[in-house]
Amino acid sequence: MINVGIVGFGYWGPNVARNFSITPGAKVVAIGDADDKSLQRAAVSYPGARMEKDCELILTAKDIDVVAIVTPVSSHFSIAKKALENGKHIFIEKPFTASVAEAEKLIAIAEIKKLKIMVDHTFLFTGAVKKIKELIDDGILGDLYYFDSIRVNLGLFQKDVNVVWDLAPHDLSIMDHILHMDPVAVTATGVAHFRNQLEDVAYITIYFPGNVIAHLNVNWLSPVKIRTTLIGGQKKMLVWNDLVSDEKIRVYDKGVEGLDSLEIESKEKAYGLRLSYRSGDMWAPRVTQVEALQGETSYFIDCINNNIPPKNDGHAGLRVVRMLEAIKQSLSGGGALVRLD
Amino acid sequence: MINVGIVGFGYWGPNVARNFSITPGAKVVAIGDADDKSLQRAAVSYPGARMEKDCELILTAKDIDVVAIVTPVSSHFSIAKKALENGKHIFIEKPFTASVAEAEKLIAIAEIKKLKIMVDHTFLFTGAVKKIKELIDDGILGDLYYFDSIRVNLGLFQKDVNVVWDLAPHDLSIMDHILHMDPVAVTATGVAHFRNQLEDVAYITIYFPGNVIAHLNVNWLSPVKIRTTLIGGQKKMLVWNDLVSDEKIRVYDKGVEGLDSLEIESKEKAYGLRLSYRSGDMWAPRVTQVEALQGETSYFIDCINNNIPPKNDGHAGLRVVRMLEAIKQSLSGGGALVRLD
Amino acid sequence: MINVGIVGFGYWGPNVARNFSITPGAKVVAIGDADDKSLQRAAVSYPGARMEKDCELILTAKDIDVVAIVTPVSSHFSIAKKALENGKHIFIEKPFTASVAEAEKLIAIAEIKKLKIMVDHTFLFTGAVKKIKELIDDGILGDLYYFDSIRVNLGLFQKDVNVVWDLAPHDLSIMDHILHMDPVAVTATGVAHFRNQLEDVAYITIYFPGNVIAHLNVNWLSPVKIRTTLIGGQKKMLVWNDLVSDEKIRVYDKGVEGLDSLEIESKEKAYGLRLSYRSGDMWAPRVTQVEALQGETSYFIDCINNNIPPKNDGHAGLRVVRMLEAIKQSLSGGGALVRLD
Amino acid sequence: MINVGIVGFGYWGPNVARNFSITPGAKVVAIGDADDKSLQRAAVSYPGARMEKDCELILTAKDIDVVAIVTPVSSHFSIAKKALENGKHIFIEKPFTASVAEAEKLIAIAEIKKLKIMVDHTFLFTGAVKKIKELIDDGILGDLYYFDSIRVNLGLFQKDVNVVWDLAPHDLSIMDHILHMDPVAVTATGVAHFRNQLEDVAYITIYFPGNVIAHLNVNWLSPVKIRTTLIGGQKKMLVWNDLVSDEKIRVYDKGVEGLDSLEIESKEKAYGLRLSYRSGDMWAPRVTQVEALQGETSYFIDCINNNIPPKNDGHAGLRVVRMLEAIKQSLSGGGALVRLD
Repeated sequence: MINVGIVGFGYWGPNVARNFSITPGAKVVAIGDADDKSLQRAAVSYPGARMEKDCELILTAKDIDVVAIVTPVSSHFSIAKKALENGKHIFIEKPFTASVAEAEKLIAIAEIKKLKIMVDHTFLFTGAVKKIKELIDDGILGDLYYFDSIRVNLGLFQKDVNVVWDLAPHDLSIMDHILHMDPVAVTATGVAHFRNQLEDVAYITIYFPGNVIAHLNVNWLSPVKIRTTLIGGQKKMLVWNDLVSDEKIRVYDKGVEGLDSLEIESKEKAYGLRLSYRSGDMWAPRVTQVEALQGETSYFIDCINNNIPPKNDGHAGLRVVRMLEAIKQSLSGGGALVRLD
Repeated sequence: MINVGIVGFGYWGPNVARNFSITPGAKVVAIGDADDKSLQRAAVSYPGARMEKDCELILTAKDIDVVAIVTPVSSHFSIAKKALENGKHIFIEKPFTASVAEAEKLIAIAEIKKLKIMVDHTFLFTGAVKKIKELIDDGILGDLYYFDSIRVNLGLFQKDVNVVWDLAPHDLSIMDHILHMDPVAVTATGVAHFRNQLEDVAYITIYFPGNVIAHLNVNWLSPVKIRTTLIGGQKKMLVWNDLVSDEKIRVYDKGVEGLDSLEIESKEKAYGLRLSYRSGDMWAPRVTQVEALQGETSYFIDCINNNIPPKNDGHAGLRVVRMLEAIKQSLSGGGALVRLD
Repeated sequence: MINVGIVGFGYWGPNVARNFSITPGAKVVAIGDADDKSLQRAAVSYPGARMEKDCELILTAKDIDVVAIVTPVSSHFSIAKKALENGKHIFIEKPFTASVAEAEKLIAIAEIKKLKIMVDHTFLFTGAVKKIKELIDDGILGDLYYFDSIRVNLGLFQKDVNVVWDLAPHDLSIMDHILHMDPVAVTATGVAHFRNQLEDVAYITIYFPGNVIAHLNVNWLSPVKIRTTLIGGQKKMLVWNDLVSDEKIRVYDKGVEGLDSLEIESKEKAYGLRLSYRSGDMWAPRVTQVEALQGETSYFIDCINNNIPPKNDGHAGLRVVRMLEAIKQSLSGGGALVRLD
Repeated sequence: MINVGIVGFGYWGPNVARNFSITPGAKVVAIGDADDKSLQRAAVSYPGARMEKDCELILTAKDIDVVAIVTPVSSHFSIAKKALENGKHIFIEKPFTASVAEAEKLIAIAEIKKLKIMVDHTFLFTGAVKKIKELIDDGILGDLYYFDSIRVNLGLFQKDVNVVWDLAPHDLSIMDHILHMDPVAVTATGVAHFRNQLEDVAYITIYFPGNVIAHLNVNWLSPVKIRTTLIGGQKKMLVWNDLVSDEKIRVYDKGVEGLDSLEIESKEKAYGLRLSYRSGDMWAPRVTQVEALQGETSYFIDCINNNIPPKNDGHAGLRVVRMLEAIKQSLSGGGALVRLD
């Protein structure tokens, strides 16, 4: 049995606690939160666990194997460091850390201590992302052209991070997972409209090798909620609409034909050549409906028990933080290109 | 009666010819195209007009008052220059010219000669854009936050211009018209996936004074066709979906509250303040269904007869070309910020 | 404090129990279910309530004021009768009873005993139905032409009732509530495709006075889920799509003009007269998001405390059962007209 | 070359004329219409054809092989009869005739004279209906359960026929074509809301052998336009939305499982058996975009040249009229069941 201590019982903490509590082989033994009201709510739901107003007691407790850190990103590093130093595996909210330097330090400690880090990139465990990953890995889409994601809605404004750090980690972790490529450069633009000076609208472009381009549109000021990703490939193209309950993923047999011939033509001739378009069937593969977080906590317990490096480990978390840091830098420069290679 | 000569009878020329031919006070007297087949088609539809294989004859003809130039952008300058020099008003396809320098020269000639230039920014004459303009001018949306447009579909690849010069002039001219502001800076990213080296996917950010930001997403490689514009304002927000026949424009009574109080709070307090959201009714004002081009040709005849400067005159065309040129420059620099002020 | 006993803790019972448990002034003191597993689940959630395998003990218990009956319709009458005879108010699932005769008997008992009956027509307490009712009562739609509802999906097949008794009570109770008219006649068609001989597809027409017509399309064999109601009125028309989270109700300023003039024209002339159509704005009023069942249980406690006859009382339940009985009769006759007046 | 005379150049006539004029092997030699304005419009478009104010001259003209009858249904019989008696093949608008008796007489004459009748069931020639027919004929959907169609919009009120005779012929002809079964009985309900006493809302149920049921919902008073057909089969289910340009047809791998076992179970056991549901992929086969009427006129010329009985011949037209007549009878009886076998 793996004993889990939860640090932070605010908005997302209850979900993490509930999923660890129903994961076979795991047990929630302690919950910590400095806020009395949150702790009282936790006590009602987990009468068998001990409640700690001082979260440090969880990081150092002898009986705890895993610390789940569900606190604001600014506190991630210090909490995670102490947990790792005390020999705990950590399950930690995204984004992993507030900087690349912090992430690298945590990874180094974990490696020395032979501990697991899992960054809560929940979306990787949804039926939709699993299916997209499978379609790409199986070569159904062919070589990829672009990844274009829109994640907009009205609010929720965060008081300490801008819209990029709030919303983009979802897309960045998904993109990292399914493209499986190292980005070459990043550029980002955006604007803050309110006195808190936090960008509420932002646009991010990420260049990958081989002319693959990614773009994220994140916005806290949209009257409508949109969660749509387009992925263009040489063989097929895909649209993922995460807001519909059925047919979330649509695979289009559409594309541009006559490209091979271009290869052997002289440039002049190529220009004159009319490209033709292929427009065939559309297919919406069934996507399994699962609670992603449940799959994720089970997978973490599995990784620990069988000593498997999680796909969403510290390195995955670091890759996302590295992009976030570059985006931040580009934003301050009004959209300057920031190289990552 | 104003006599019109049409130069170019390819894809769009027939529409321009047809609309001038049914405009009261105008008469299509000549059509020119170097291509025999196009000219034959024109001859069938316009038995009363003369057909010219040598388009120059139209530019210099004594009986012609207006030359409508419906040719590729690379030929715009030389044709328009000769037409103006011969005393003709010109109606010219968008984008106006291939460079800022060309546009400025044409404007200068027209001013000296007291001739009208109308750039075919057709969208300004649609019921949808008219209604949006009216909503903004009437203050219904309040101060604007952003203008975010997506214009993607599969093809049509052009053989001499990239996706930006093909699709973005629509959005740029609409944006220029309804925002009525001078852009401060531009940044653009994009990629060419095929041997012709023309970008087929591009993302453009345009900064305006007062924290207004605009963004265009143009793509020739999308499996689905999207023509959606979001406009966020302090009082109301708007979504324009140009692909639906009914309810093209939806106005949302949504927004962020508690901003005024922010003004007088200290920064620290402001950070702690919870913003609240207003989520009220949605309203889809009726949009008149008109043939935009018909409204535009009638308006041009009207501008000539009554010596009115067209809203889509050479200066409007120049503003769009100036942005296109800056976008081009930014694209070559991988997304570098290009200042326009 | 009003003490509530819940009879039946299967699919819907837990929702009823939970909502009574959080209703101010009410307390769930006992839960009964013949099934051991259901009772165990109830015991975990309601440690303060007593569990009864023999539901009769709830119907006769001295300390219980309200019995909530959440069992299959075939058992409603006997349970409700005993509860009423023992002086309990009853909250009862829809449809109220399996026959008009049963409903009338229960109403009679309740009247003699001065007890309240509330039939769980949950939809009446949704933001959408409240708004529609308000729009109609305020005369916004004008005189009504028709009520047309589609309620189709794949499954859930019931083992003892057909698709009409499963799905139509929703629409019949909504229709009864918002039209507030006595139906004149009913006709219904349908087919059973499986060995259980229960209709899985059915179509119901209900005639009202003044040329108002209602139609219900209920289907357990649809590949897509649809919950759409069209309501046509002389002044405005309305579409209610219950499956979207935003803009559930759309009010269209559309209609037929030139009707008054018809009144004074001779028949011949009238035929020749062209009707014209009004096609104006669309408006989606904000619909409050509430848990309907919570509003309903609170309202019931209120009705008891203040001796108010509930709008969804036994008479409302009876009106729905009377239509269901007529539909059944029509179905057996292959669609014969069954008069209700 | 087959010479075609067009009788009626109102709303639909110009489409029929244009399509015959571009059909290889056919030539429009005469157009007749009693209305001067219509005839003038025809003269402009067809300078090579003769114009006849007296349509009789077309029915008897020596040089005419085919008469296309595009007039109100009330005039079909007399015009068609004279055309057939004068040895002309006829292409005739739907519905074929105003009564079964009329249809039977025309068929009899055509058979004696060895002439072709084609009823303009245009929808049979659309890519969508062809694809649906193919899917059903290939057994993809399996045994059919139901055909459920909705065809509603605002207007166009006709001055001489009700909504059933205006809209239902589309669905009836499609249904007849793809089900290929003889209906057993019909029932219809509906209401007229205006002084012209023509039903503007109607609901039609058609029973077929083997528990197949069809339903049509036709309405001239709907604020939204809907053209949706659901077809349920044992193996697959299909939704056809004719208002979208892409993915008009969606085929769902959804259904009810465990039916075979029902066959051998006793009735009691069967009732207790839980049916399970299959919910797999969705697939939108590509539908070819063609001008249906063009396919139809070409097919007619082909049928004449090669002496092939058209699929949409007089018998097909008669089957639709027989249903229309039964619907009319049922409507007058308030929804009485009218047997057709």
